[in-house]
Amino acid sequence: MKRPIVGIIMGSDSDLPVMREARDVLEAAGATCEMKILSAHRTPKAMMDYVQGAEGRGMKIIIAGAGGAAHLPGMAAALTPLPVIGVPIKSAAFSGLDSLLSIVQMPGGVPVATMAVNGAKNAGLLALRILALGDREFRLRLEEQRRLMEEQAAGKARRLEEEE
Amino acid sequence: MKRPIVGIIMGSDSDLPVMREARDVLEAAGATCEMKILSAHRTPKAMMDYVQGAEGRGMKIIIAGAGGAAHLPGMAAALTPLPVIGVPIKSAAFSGLDSLLSIVQMPGGVPVATMAVNGAKNAGLLALRILALGDREFRLRLEEQRRLMEEQAAGKARRLEEEE
Amino acid sequence: MKRPIVGIIMGSDSDLPVMREARDVLEAAGATCEMKILSAHRTPKAMMDYVQGAEGRGMKIIIAGAGGAAHLPGMAAALTPLPVIGVPIKSAAFSGLDSLLSIVQMPGGVPVATMAVNGAKNAGLLALRILALGDREFRLRLEEQRRLMEEQAAGKARRLEEEE
Amino acid sequence: MKRPIVGIIMGSDSDLPVMREARDVLEAAGATCEMKILSAHRTPKAMMDYVQGAEGRGMKIIIAGAGGAAHLPGMAAALTPLPVIGVPIKSAAFSGLDSLLSIVQMPGGVPVATMAVNGAKNAGLLALRILALGDREFRLRLEEQRRLMEEQAAGKARRLEEEE
Amino acid sequence: MKRPIVGIIMGSDSDLPVMREARDVLEAAGATCEMKILSAHRTPKAMMDYVQGAEGRGMKIIIAGAGGAAHLPGMAAALTPLPVIGVPIKSAAFSGLDSLLSIVQMPGGVPVATMAVNGAKNAGLLALRILALGDREFRLRLEEQRRLMEEQAAGKARRLEEEE
Amino acid sequence: MKRPIVGIIMGSDSDLPVMREARDVLEAAGATCEMKILSAHRTPKAMMDYVQGAEGRGMKIIIAGAGGAAHLPGMAAALTPLPVIGVPIKSAAFSGLDSLLSIVQMPGGVPVATMAVNGAKNAGLLALRILALGDREFRLRLEEQRRLMEEQAAGKARRLEEEE
Amino acid sequence: MKRPIVGIIMGSDSDLPVMREARDVLEAAGATCEMKILSAHRTPKAMMDYVQGAEGRGMKIIIAGAGGAAHLPGMAAALTPLPVIGVPIKSAAFSGLDSLLSIVQMPGGVPVATMAVNGAKNAGLLALRILALGDREFRLRLEEQRRLMEEQAAGKARRLEEEE
Amino acid sequence: MKRPIVGIIMGSDSDLPVMREARDVLEAAGATCEMKILSAHRTPKAMMDYVQGAEGRGMKIIIAGAGGAAHLPGMAAALTPLPVIGVPIKSAAFSGLDSLLSIVQMPGGVPVATMAVNGAKNAGLLALRILALGDREFRLRLEEQRRLMEEQAAGKARRLEEEE
Repeated sequence: MKRPIVGIIMGSDSDLPVMREARDVLEAAGATCEMKILSAHRTPKAMMDYVQGAEGRGMKIIIAGAGGAAHLPGMAAALTPLPVIGVPIKSAAFSGLDSLLSIVQMPGGVPVATMAVNGAKNAGLLALRILALGDREFRLRLEEQRRLMEEQAAGKARRLEEEE
Repeated sequence: MKRPIVGIIMGSDSDLPVMREARDVLEAAGATCEMKILSAHRTPKAMMDYVQGAEGRGMKIIIAGAGGAAHLPGMAAALTPLPVIGVPIKSAAFSGLDSLLSIVQMPGGVPVATMAVNGAKNAGLLALRILALGDREFRLRLEEQRRLMEEQAAGKARRLEEEE
Repeated sequence: MKRPIVGIIMGSDSDLPVMREARDVLEAAGATCEMKILSAHRTPKAMMDYVQGAEGRGMKIIIAGAGGAAHLPGMAAALTPLPVIGVPIKSAAFSGLDSLLSIVQMPGGVPVATMAVNGAKNAGLLALRILALGDREFRLRLEEQRRLMEEQAAGKARRLEEEE
Repeated sequence: MKRPIVGIIMGSDSDLPVMREARDVLEAAGATCEMKILSAHRTPKAMMDYVQGAEGRGMKIIIAGAGGAAHLPGMAAALTPLPVIGVPIKSAAFSGLDSLLSIVQMPGGVPVATMAVNGAKNAGLLALRILALGDREFRLRLEEQRRLMEEQAAGKARRLEEEE
Repeated sequence: MKRPIVGIIMGSDSDLPVMREARDVLEAAGATCEMKILSAHRTPKAMMDYVQGAEGRGMKIIIAGAGGAAHLPGMAAALTPLPVIGVPIKSAAFSGLDSLLSIVQMPGGVPVATMAVNGAKNAGLLALRILALGDREFRLRLEEQRRLMEEQAAGKARRLEEEE
Repeated sequence: MKRPIVGIIMGSDSDLPVMREARDVLEAAGATCEMKILSAHRTPKAMMDYVQGAEGRGMKIIIAGAGGAAHLPGMAAALTPLPVIGVPIKSAAFSGLDSLLSIVQMPGGVPVATMAVNGAKNAGLLALRILALGDREFRLRLEEQRRLMEEQAAGKARRLEEEE
Repeated sequence: MKRPIVGIIMGSDSDLPVMREARDVLEAAGATCEMKILSAHRTPKAMMDYVQGAEGRGMKIIIAGAGGAAHLPGMAAALTPLPVIGVPIKSAAFSGLDSLLSIVQMPGGVPVATMAVNGAKNAGLLALRILALGDREFRLRLEEQRRLMEEQAAGKARRLEEEE
Repeated sequence: MKRPIVGIIMGSDSDLPVMREARDVLEAAGATCEMKILSAHRTPKAMMDYVQGAEGRGMKIIIAGAGGAAHLPGMAAALTPLPVIGVPIKSAAFSGLDSLLSIVQMPGGVPVATMAVNGAKNAGLLALRILALGDREFRLRLEEQRRLMEEQAAGKARRLEEEE
């Protein structure tokens, strides 16, 4: 198996079902991923070590999911020059509004590419778009994914026409 | 001058006018403070060094102000066993709702004592209440502060009665 | 059994399942707690008596949970010089946004250390951080709790690596 | 001058310009008012004494204005059997959303008749409607007020027709 | 049975389970109520006839419940000089925030005494407080209700002490 | 001058500067309008008379602007079978969120075509699109308006290219 | 079967159960509809072709439902001179607030007649009101629908009176 | 001058002052940009042509700023396989909450890398991080930018220490 080029990190194991969608999209396109539970709050040192070493280990992109006071994506972006994609996880009290604002409202200087609440699939697809800029193979896979998505949507449209 | 026992940190020098209110309350009560600009995002290493060394240098309490995706109070609470008081700074787009949610919605395990938006004065007063638990002098100063506050409010009430 | 040093009060018995988490954290660390149902609205006199007498009975900290128009933490903070920690309880209509704003947006002069919605565990942990400032035993227990939390998070991280 | 039958209380002298509108409406209708600055947080005992004594001194209605964590109307309603009308004052950070939710979201058992943000004029008019139930004079004044309001609106409508 | 003195109206039969709480409180205190389904939008003429005739038929107070774009309380207040109490019904999309704002944010001139989302019980209790101003019997019943509420809360508090 | 076919009504003369944009768009396209100040709350009977008579007087469309607890558009839609377009006016406390929700969240049965906050220009353009369905002249004017809008946008784009 | 005069489009087949309510209302009134799944994001070209060709194929009105970042109604309005009615679909994270704001906050020049969250029935009724302007048959059907609605509401009101 | 590799597009010339910050960051790092005013609503065809041709003309990244019902970033992402970065522009009524939700809440399949409200500087920096993945020169410039940012923050920190 190839060396991972996308690190998918999350604050808690309860975020796993959502974050796996990012991995599935990327691995379907041939991009090896690495998934890690790393909490900005509960294991700050492990988080820092992982993020600071990511570029050196050949990583290209970090995808970080977190909920509530979601600091993981922003701290990752502070600690690496790699592009960081943030996924706000839907939270119990505020349905992810807290997660979204905690991730997206970053100060000037430290960008986080923020996705929709629970938008891990799109995090994977954005990573694929970025990887495709420098790799013909990924560019082809991206094209396939876009064609497939369009076909699926068109298929649903046709089924509706036949039924109604 | 005595060694500082309360560290007042903030993410940006634009937070200074608000955060000085915390210091003013504490120094009026005889508690020496130390003010620092330390950004979780722009100077993460300096922030970590400061917070991790705080207890060893005799600090008792950290007060942290931040706006927007306000990670400083939560990261401080992750890196020190001292009580951390968070002050959400009013932000341009969401008037501090983003700052408030980013600070208050901490996950279980890492508490931040959150104040009102721009509530730095109350951050100072909470610190004073905590210090007063173990120090008779601070307990007396707290009593004075509370009496003064009540008198000022009563004074305003009297002035209204005379005027209207 | 030792004299209680933390009073945990709440407006309604429906808040009990949440507020017990504060007690569990504190009693695990050896801090004796006292739980009371005291409503700022339904039993205002009992509430006042309890809060005003708390310091005299040797209490160090008040933890107050309330939902909706959550006045209990703020009224407690008005009636005692002890540190007051507020826990916004998730509410039926607004998921705790009303509880949170009613607790956190205190005016200058009367601080409430506000936790996340339903964040009673963190209320206990903040109380423990405060108690640890003046007591070596609590300081050690706090260290243990922080190590345990980090280990649990690391354990989850390891399990993920083995599984995926 | 007649004995006051409506008590208009507010948490801070900064609420005065808004709350005077309640008094103006009531005094124009011949109902004597009493205005007081009484803070649930800064002068809790004076507030309690005033509210608990209100009915005995012949008061019929309490109008209470407050901003932020606005506890005054709810505490007043807890301490008197008189009808309490709450006026949420526009606040700096959340434009009165915090004030509104803190006042309106009262638990079952303790009602506060909540007005719009800064809606002190309507607080006076609601008080007048209540007073009119048991007093022919006030009923006539209410009728006049309603006719006047309709005429003013109709006058504006006519002026528009002439101009455009 | 006595002539009704409180009209309880609502926009839809789905509001009935909530609005019955207002009637239960009032009838327990001996105040006869009349419940009607009257929609400002679907049966505007029936609504106007009912509200405009209410005072003439001896009504003292109108309680109006509505959800979503909740116009019933405000239109009632525009069409009668009686006090109108509004109950925002919890709505499907916005949990009652739309109902609350549509009811509470009335323009100057036409007050609606707004309750919490689904706060029909408090609507009944506010009506009772108003009725008690002019009727000793209702004043006594109000006293009983307040004592009962306090006893129930105290009972819950005692049970907690025995159990824990 | 031709008989008006679009009635533009608003709750207050303070809404005039916004609502004139609807008229300007329509009159530029040759559709005669009638502007009226008619309050659902302050002049309910005049409002009802106007709206109920609109179709009989040859009106085709009602445009209604209102702010806060904005009942005018919904009440108009309840009282006429004509299409009603609602314009939420920006409000002091909630920037038009209250106006928007009060207008858009209509119950099933009574539709209001809701525009953006202060979106009176688009109200005029929607009316023009509706009128164009049955009138070739309006259809041509609509085409012109759309071409003009595109040209203006393209002109701005060109100016940017020349400048930067 | 007659040629469709209303196009009902939606971004996803999960919107079908809601959007069918628009068709049911219209077909009950004799207006033939055409339902299509067309995504602004997943099938942009099919969407553009459909909308741009709508007027030429005899369409009178487009009804577009979408959730989340709901671009379909606005893009439709940009690509056709026909009236476009937008239905915000209730979304997972923000209960349709995102859908509503994405649809209603259109810039000047391109109007979308926005309905309540999930308000597809009213979309059908607004379309019927528009069609009724130029067609006596639809005008009669609209009258029937309005009478039926009033009768159903009155029926519910009567049942309540019999029961309670 | 080199061929542009980043296209910066925006819906209106009023967005220019904000969006120039993205260009300034990129051009300071040696990345040539192209700025265009292209409205998804007012000039949909020009927008589509530009976005669909972007990759063929050698573009690597699209940065799109828009306010209100902000459809430009999402439509761009639907029409190109390039990474699209969205900048929500602060809006008049909702301070950019509408812009943010319209941009970030994209459905699965079409990602937009969303920045903070008015966060154009970070859009430029994210683009630079992406460009740096495949270009040593940009990687060096990114390093410089990060060092400079840290130094500026540290400089402010030092100035505070000297002053206070």
